[in-house]
Amino acid sequence: MNLSQDWVVGFVDGEGCFHVSVQKHSEMTAGYQFMPEFVVVQHVRDIQILYALKKFFGCGVVRINHGDRCTYRVKKLENLQKICEFFMRHPLKTKKNIDFRKFRKIVMLMREKKHLSREGLKEILDIAMEMNTFKRPSLERIKKELENG
Amino acid sequence: MNLSQDWVVGFVDGEGCFHVSVQKHSEMTAGYQFMPEFVVVQHVRDIQILYALKKFFGCGVVRINHGDRCTYRVKKLENLQKICEFFMRHPLKTKKNIDFRKFRKIVMLMREKKHLSREGLKEILDIAMEMNTFKRPSLERIKKELENG
Repeated sequence: MNLSQDWVVGFVDGEGCFHVSVQKHSEMTAGYQFMPEFVVVQHVRDIQILYALKKFFGCGVVRINHGDRCTYRVKKLENLQKICEFFMRHPLKTKKNIDFRKFRKIVMLMREKKHLSREGLKEILDIAMEMNTFKRPSLERIKKELENG
Repeated sequence: MNLSQDWVVGFVDGEGCFHVSVQKHSEMTAGYQFMPEFVVVQHVRDIQILYALKKFFGCGVVRINHGDRCTYRVKKLENLQKICEFFMRHPLKTKKNIDFRKFRKIVMLMREKKHLSREGLKEILDIAMEMNTFKRPSLERIKKELENG
């Protein structure tokens, strides 16, 4: 199945998610690991759409989850940069674009290895805290830890 | 905001719903009223997308629901026919297309006023019962009533 650029933008406006998760990680310089990812979840009956997205972007992984869900997921920074470049050239039309812009900033900072210093991590954290998909009290706690540490 | 045809197909593949509801209606010849509708629901922050869809299709109504949801809804049969014609020329890529084809059959039968006879109503009911969005035990009951009535 071949997808057009505009179809992909419309579909991701509906079903795509630009998400950043954070985990405590003792081996990381600043004690935390940020993991940006681009995710599209579908019912398994539409797994062929996820394979078509994977082909379209030329990266990412399709997996069947527990239950009847399947997921297209891009996690590698260099691949996320490609995804970001596409959505800069073909902007999302919903308010998801606001979150995407913040997501892109985080990906760019991480490509510049800013997340390996405490200062850079704080900068990333501040951006992540402004994202709609990412307003968790744990971020406030991490921020305090970074500021006090 | 102007939407491209492919963007609309992609967005509706994600967020659109082709739905048929049925109600007991004593004034209708066969005792039941079928109400097909095309619906897109969004968070209120994206109400401008729904207005853009309304402009794109040249029909339908945008409403703010209870809570933080808003809805673009097309109910008039002649407008639903326009919507169906668009998605016949520009097919959905997900399995939603299977439901759409059944939805379109129902709209066409209703445009031909088939729903005003008991026979036509049974035909519509059989199609509706095959739709993913519409597998409710009440349909089985109505079918029995129509067969016995």
